[in-house]
Amino acid sequence: MLFKRLFFIFSGLCMLQSAAAQEHNALQVEMNKVRLSFYLDGDGRPVYALAYNGRLVIADSRQGFVLEQDSLFYKGFAITGTEKSSVNETWQPVWGEVSSIRDHYEQLTVHLKQQQAPGYLLDLVFRVFEDGMGFRYEFPQQPGLKYFIVKDELTEFNLTSDPLTFWIPGDYDSNEYAYTTSKLSQVNNTQQVQSATDIAVRTVPDPYAVQTPLMMKTEDNLYINIHEAALVNYPAMQLHVNGAVHQLTSSLVPDAVGNKAYLHAPCKTPWRTIIVSDKAADVLASKLILNLNEPPAATDLSWIRPMKFVGVWWEMQTGKSTWNYADAASERGKDDLVPNGRHGANTANVKKYIDFAAANNIKGVLVEGWNTGWEDWFGNWKENVFDFVTPYPDFNVKEIEDYAAAKGVQMIMHNETSGSATNYERQLDTAFRFMQAYGYPAVKTGYVGKIIPRGEHHDGQWMVNHYERVAQKGMQYHIMIDAHEPPRPTGLQRTYPNWLACEAGRGNEYNAFSNGNAPEHETILPFTRLMGGPMDYTPGIFKLKGYAPNMPDRQVHTTLAKQLALYVTIYSPVQMVADLPENYAAHADAFNFIKEVPVDWNDTRIIAAEPGDYITIARKEKGKSNWYVGAITDENSRKAAIPLQFLDKGKKYRATVYADAPDADWKKNPEAYQIKTSVVDANTVLTIQLAAGGGAAIAIQPM
Amino acid sequence: MLFKRLFFIFSGLCMLQSAAAQEHNALQVEMNKVRLSFYLDGDGRPVYALAYNGRLVIADSRQGFVLEQDSLFYKGFAITGTEKSSVNETWQPVWGEVSSIRDHYEQLTVHLKQQQAPGYLLDLVFRVFEDGMGFRYEFPQQPGLKYFIVKDELTEFNLTSDPLTFWIPGDYDSNEYAYTTSKLSQVNNTQQVQSATDIAVRTVPDPYAVQTPLMMKTEDNLYINIHEAALVNYPAMQLHVNGAVHQLTSSLVPDAVGNKAYLHAPCKTPWRTIIVSDKAADVLASKLILNLNEPPAATDLSWIRPMKFVGVWWEMQTGKSTWNYADAASERGKDDLVPNGRHGANTANVKKYIDFAAANNIKGVLVEGWNTGWEDWFGNWKENVFDFVTPYPDFNVKEIEDYAAAKGVQMIMHNETSGSATNYERQLDTAFRFMQAYGYPAVKTGYVGKIIPRGEHHDGQWMVNHYERVAQKGMQYHIMIDAHEPPRPTGLQRTYPNWLACEAGRGNEYNAFSNGNAPEHETILPFTRLMGGPMDYTPGIFKLKGYAPNMPDRQVHTTLAKQLALYVTIYSPVQMVADLPENYAAHADAFNFIKEVPVDWNDTRIIAAEPGDYITIARKEKGKSNWYVGAITDENSRKAAIPLQFLDKGKKYRATVYADAPDADWKKNPEAYQIKTSVVDANTVLTIQLAAGGGAAIAIQPM
Repeated sequence: MLFKRLFFIFSGLCMLQSAAAQEHNALQVEMNKVRLSFYLDGDGRPVYALAYNGRLVIADSRQGFVLEQDSLFYKGFAITGTEKSSVNETWQPVWGEVSSIRDHYEQLTVHLKQQQAPGYLLDLVFRVFEDGMGFRYEFPQQPGLKYFIVKDELTEFNLTSDPLTFWIPGDYDSNEYAYTTSKLSQVNNTQQVQSATDIAVRTVPDPYAVQTPLMMKTEDNLYINIHEAALVNYPAMQLHVNGAVHQLTSSLVPDAVGNKAYLHAPCKTPWRTIIVSDKAADVLASKLILNLNEPPAATDLSWIRPMKFVGVWWEMQTGKSTWNYADAASERGKDDLVPNGRHGANTANVKKYIDFAAANNIKGVLVEGWNTGWEDWFGNWKENVFDFVTPYPDFNVKEIEDYAAAKGVQMIMHNETSGSATNYERQLDTAFRFMQAYGYPAVKTGYVGKIIPRGEHHDGQWMVNHYERVAQKGMQYHIMIDAHEPPRPTGLQRTYPNWLACEAGRGNEYNAFSNGNAPEHETILPFTRLMGGPMDYTPGIFKLKGYAPNMPDRQVHTTLAKQLALYVTIYSPVQMVADLPENYAAHADAFNFIKEVPVDWNDTRIIAAEPGDYITIARKEKGKSNWYVGAITDENSRKAAIPLQFLDKGKKYRATVYADAPDADWKKNPEAYQIKTSVVDANTVLTIQLAAGGGAAIAIQPM
Repeated sequence: MLFKRLFFIFSGLCMLQSAAAQEHNALQVEMNKVRLSFYLDGDGRPVYALAYNGRLVIADSRQGFVLEQDSLFYKGFAITGTEKSSVNETWQPVWGEVSSIRDHYEQLTVHLKQQQAPGYLLDLVFRVFEDGMGFRYEFPQQPGLKYFIVKDELTEFNLTSDPLTFWIPGDYDSNEYAYTTSKLSQVNNTQQVQSATDIAVRTVPDPYAVQTPLMMKTEDNLYINIHEAALVNYPAMQLHVNGAVHQLTSSLVPDAVGNKAYLHAPCKTPWRTIIVSDKAADVLASKLILNLNEPPAATDLSWIRPMKFVGVWWEMQTGKSTWNYADAASERGKDDLVPNGRHGANTANVKKYIDFAAANNIKGVLVEGWNTGWEDWFGNWKENVFDFVTPYPDFNVKEIEDYAAAKGVQMIMHNETSGSATNYERQLDTAFRFMQAYGYPAVKTGYVGKIIPRGEHHDGQWMVNHYERVAQKGMQYHIMIDAHEPPRPTGLQRTYPNWLACEAGRGNEYNAFSNGNAPEHETILPFTRLMGGPMDYTPGIFKLKGYAPNMPDRQVHTTLAKQLALYVTIYSPVQMVADLPENYAAHADAFNFIKEVPVDWNDTRIIAAEPGDYITIARKEKGKSNWYVGAITDENSRKAAIPLQFLDKGKKYRATVYADAPDADWKKNPEAYQIKTSVVDANTVLTIQLAAGGGAAIAIQPM
C-alpha cells in the first residue's frame, strides 16, 4: 500500500513538473515527432524533458554534477546565452550495415553560469534527431576550473510509466549476463548476480543497477532505448533504477579511489542518448549513436577489411583441447613444461584450420593458446602473465606465417591480458611489432580477470582510456582490433574503424561453458548490446548437442538454421565461423550459406522486430546485388512473413532458403533443417515457419 | 603517573618473556656480542629476541602475517626442522665506500608448519652478524598456498627501554621530512605532518607512524638501527610506535584497495634488519644491509662510472630561471608557447655549464626543464604529462650532444614523471632509446606528485616494482639511474649497480624552497636515510645567503666549509656540484676541494660520530693514495680531533685543511673559511675548530 501511495504522489509531481516546464518558457527543439524541452528550475537547476508525438517520454529530469571542486555543480545556474543550428548531411562509413548514413539534427547549445562566485561555466548541448536525441555536457575553458574531478554525474531519465525493460545488471566489470525481461519497477539484480557464477569477475554496486543500452517498451507501445555515444576519457554510464518512481539516474563506474572522472577543461562528456519510436524496427535502424561519434582522424583506411574467420577456439571452449601446453606451470619456465598432449595451438592443427579457411572463402584464422603462460594465467590478480611474443614449443610462428601466406589466409593474433592492463601497456609496442613482423593484420584482445591497476574496473575511465590507446596503437601499426571484455561499445567504431568489434556481451561461447543463452537471447541483443556497435558473437555452431565431452547434456539453445540466420541478424564486420571443420563437413549444404554470407553491406532493412520475440533483417552485400535475410525467433515457434519489396523492381532472383525442418526444435531436434530454392522478385512474400528457438537464412542472388 | 606505572608493568613483562624464552629452550645463534633467540610460544607463535653483549636489545617479539587466505598465519605453528650454516667471505662492489666487503654471518633457518589443515608452511631465516642481524620470511613452494595476498605483516620489535629516537613521519609518499629527536615514547608526528607544507604529497596513516631506517640510542648507550634490506616485490616497511610499551610493529604501505602485497610462492620477503653496537661509528660502518642484498645478475658492469655533475637546476630551485619555457600552457601545443625569457634549459646556458664542467674535472651535466610540459605538470593527478623526448624550441639536443662530446663531458638526462608511473612505463623504451641516441649515460628520474595508478603510493609494492623495472631497463640500455622520490633505499644498489643513488630524503634543495634543514640535519642523515644507500643530496652550495631573488632572508643552514665536508660525510657515487658557476668563481680556492674530491673509494674510516651532533669520516680515493676527510657539527661549535693513523706509517703527506674561519657561524657569517696546508703523517692529530653549523674538509696527498 505504501508503494502505491508513493507512486501516485510522484506521478502527480511529474505532471506538475512538466506543466512547470511550460510555465518557465522552456527552450524547445523539435524534429518531426521528437521534441526536447529545457529550462532552469527555481533553484537554477538544469531540467530537460523529451516528448514523442506529443506523448511525454522523459518527464522533467535534472542534469548536473557533483565535482570535487564544487559539490553543488547542479544548481544556482543562469542561462547566459543559447545557440541553435541544424545539420543535414550524409557520410560514408568505412564498413557497416549501410554504405551511406544520414546525419540530420537540430542542435541547441545552452550556456550556463553559476551565479555564486567564482561563477563556473557549463554548456549543455542537445541534438534532436528524428529518432531521438543526444545531449552532452561541455566544460568550457574558464579561469577557475581547469583540472577537476567528477565525484558524480546526476543526469536523470524520468520515465512517465512503468515500461517493460530488457536488462542486465550494471556491473563495473562485466557485460556478460543473461537478459531479464521485467517491468522497470521490478528490477532487482540480486538473483542474477548471485547465480552468474560463470562470469569471472562480478562487481555490482547495488541491486538496482542496470547496464545500458537499456531497452524499454511502454504499455502504449513506445520503444525507448537509453545509452551513450562517444565514450572517451570518461567512465561508462550505468543506470540506477528507482522503480517506485520509474526514475533512472546515471551511475558512473568509479576508479580505485572512488572518483568517477579526472577531466581537464575545455572538455566534453560522452553523449547521453535516448532513441524513441513507436516501431521497434526504427530502434534497430537508428544511426543516432554513430552520428554522435567523431569521424576518423586518419585518412588512409584502405587496410581495414571486414572478414570472416575460423579459429582454434571452440575446441578449447568445449574441452576437446586446451589453451595450455602443459597441465602445470613450471617455476623453471617454458623449457621445462611437460606437454599434456591436448594443446590445441599446435602447428599441425593450425594448418588444418588454414586449409579449411582457404577452401571456404574465409579470410582469417585465429589461434588462441599459442603463447606461453596459459598454465597459470587466471584468477590470481597476477600482473605479469603473458609476454605476447613467446610461442609454445609446438607453435612454429614462421612456419605458420609462410603456410597461411601461401594459402592466401591471414592469421589473427590473440593477446589475452587476464585483465593486467599495465602489463599489456608495457609491451604494447613489442606485441604490435610482433604482429607486423609475422603478418597478423588483426588481434583479438582479452581481459578475463580483475583489472590491474588494482582497484580499477573494466568500465572505468582508466580502462576506457586503455582500450582507446590500444585502438590508437592499432591505427599506428595498421592492426584491426576485436576487443573482448571491454566496456560495451558506444559508436567509437566510427572514429576508430580498425576497432572492428567488441565482445562486451554474452556470446555464443556461454553455450559451451555454462547453462547457455536462452532462445530469446539473440532477439534481445540487437536492441541492447548491439546498439553501440558490432559484437564478436561467434555464431555458426552446427553440432548443437554432444560437443562438450565432459558435459554430455550441454546444448546450444538454437536450431542450426538459426545459427545461420545470426550471420545476418547480428551485425559485425568480423564474424567467426565458430564450429570445428569436421562439424561443418557433416552439413556441407548448410555450410554453403556461411561460405557465401558477406560481412559488409550496402544496405539494411529491418523487416520485423520485437525485442525478446523475433527479428527479421535483410541486408544487401557491399558492392553486389545479392541480398541476405536472417529471421530468428525466441522459444516460440512462429511464422515469418518476409516481403521482398527491397529487391529491384522487375528483376528476377534465385532465393535459397535455409529453414528449420518441420520437426525442428531447439531442444529436441536442433540440427533438422531444409534447404529450398525458388525464383523470387520484389512482389514475393516468403512465408517461413521458424521452429521453437529456430530461424531461417536466405541468400538471394540475381538470376 | 599513569605512564610510569604502565612502563613499569611492561618492563616486568619483558623480563618475564625473556625468561620464558629460555624456559622454552629457545634456538640460539651467536656471533661475538650478538645473540639471537627464537622459539614458538604456547600458541605456536614465532617469537625472537636479540641481545648484545648480554643486554637484551629486542625483547621477545612476535613474527607472522595476516593473509587473505589465512587470517591466523601467525600462530598454530610447529617447528618441523632447522638448519644452521656459516658464511665468511669477501666481495668487491662495483663502487662504494670500500673496495672490499666482508660478509660474515651465522644463519639459522627454521621450518614451520601450521598444525591446522591445510598445514601451511613458513620458513624463517635469521642471519646473525657481528653488528646485528637480519631475518626474512620465506614462503616455500607448497600445495595450498601459491598466489596469496598479505593483508598485514605482524613483525614486532619490542625494545627494552625508551630510547632517544631520530625519526621522520612514516609517510606512504614521502621521505622528505625534517628529523625530530625525541624519546620513543614521545613520538607523535601530527605537528610535523601538518607543518610540512613544503612536501607535495603527504599520506600518513596515523600519528605514531615513523619511517625506517629508524635510529635509536638507549640511555645505556646502545645504538640501535632498524631498517630492511632487499626491498623487492613488497611494500616498504614503516613502523608503528606504541610508545607506552616501547614497541615497534611493521606497518606495510598499502595498495589502492588496502592490500599490502601480492605474492607467489616460493618467495621471500625483504630482510628486517637490526644493527646494534655500543659505538655509533659501528652503525655508520656497517655493511649488514648491503650484505643482505643479492649480487648483480649482469657481468659486464664496466660502463657503470661514479661521477660528479653540475646542473641547470639550482638556478630554478632558487627562482632565477624556470623549468617552464612559457608562463602558461597552450591548448594548441608547444609550437604555440610564448617564451617567458627566463627558461633555464636553453642551449647557450647549457653550454656554459658544459664549459664549467670541462674546466673543473666534473664529468656530468644535468639539465632539467629541457622537455615540453613544464607549464602544466604539477598537482593535478594528470596522467599524460611528459613525453620524455620532445625538447623545448630553445634546447637543441643534437647541438648540445656534439658540444658536450667535444668537451669530454657527459649529459645527464632528466625524466620527471610527476608521479604518473603508468605514463612513464608506456614510454620507457622510447625514453631510454632517446638517451642512447643522444649520448646520455645516466638519467635522473622524478616522481613529484600523487602516484598514477591512482590509489597507489610511492612506497607501495606496485611502485617498488616500478622503480626496479626502471633500474632493470637501465641495465638493459646501459643507463645509470638517480631516482628522486622513490622509497628509501635498502641496499639494492648491490644488485643494480647502475642504480647509483636515490633522493628519498630531505636534500639540500629544501634550503632553496623552504625554511630549510636544521644544522644538525646532515649529522642525522647518515644514521637514518643513508643506511640503505647513497643519496643525491646535492651539496656544494657556496652562496649561502641571498641566492633566492624573491626570498632575501632565506639561507642555507651550514657554513661553506661544511658544504665541502658533505662530499665526504654523505657518501654517494654521484655527487652534484650544486651551486652556480659564478658562485664557485667567487671562491676559487675553496672550490679546489670540490674539483679534487672523488666519488669512489678504496676505504672508509668513521673517526667520530654521534647522531644529531657530529660526524667525522676519512675516505681513501679508489686506486690512489689520497685521503679525504670530512668533519661536520650541528648547531653547536665544537673542536674536531682527527688522528690520521689511517695514513701509511712512516710516509709524509701534505694536508690541505678547508676549515671555518674563527668568526664563521652558519647564521651570521657562513661564507667565512680558511685554507691551510701542513705536512702530516700517521702520528698527526689534526685539531680543527668547527663553527656552529660548520665543518671542515681535508685533502691529504702523499708528498
